[in-house]
Amino acid sequence: MMNDELAVLRKKLDDVNLDLLALINERGKLVQEIGKVKEKQGTKRFDPVRERDMLNVIADNNQGPFQDGTLQHLFKEIFKASLELQEDDMHKALLV
Amino acid sequence: MMNDELAVLRKKLDDVNLDLLALINERGKLVQEIGKVKEKQGTKRFDPVRERDMLNVIADNNQGPFQDGTLQHLFKEIFKASLELQEDDMHKALLV
Repeated sequence: MMNDELAVLRKKLDDVNLDLLALINERGKLVQEIGKVKEKQGTKRFDPVRERDMLNVIADNNQGPFQDGTLQHLFKEIFKASLELQEDDMHKALLV
Repeated sequence: MMNDELAVLRKKLDDVNLDLLALINERGKLVQEIGKVKEKQGTKRFDPVRERDMLNVIADNNQGPFQDGTLQHLFKEIFKASLELQEDDMHKALLV
């Protein structure tokens, strides 16, 4: 039946959503660790060259169906959220 | 050394980026399949109730460090890109 087909696909999508959630948070933890190392080094957190490199790697490894530009937009949003995470940690550290 | 520590963390981040890329594209393929089933059924592609449900599941399963609102923003961007993917398929089908 068509509705079963839709239900199966939706179940798969729900699983992928949870995998994505876990992976984005795993990425968040790594970015927090990187923030701490940079803090100790006195290095700036925002590194546009490193961001550009990561976006190029995304495009180079993209097998679709999303277009490079769409994926790069999504990753830029993830980068932005990650930088905010590091800034939150920084503020918390200052308040202690 | 501090720079080795940063290099190791960055390598891990690069790996997570590639996993994310693969997973977002896997999600894209599922959404394309769902679009085709809905097309056959004559169902509307955009389903705000289903989107809201998925966003609630994200918040319910979020273990951080990202806040619920940040993750929901990122997922909304992914949903938007997915809908555009379905619309592209629709246009292509019409042009054949």
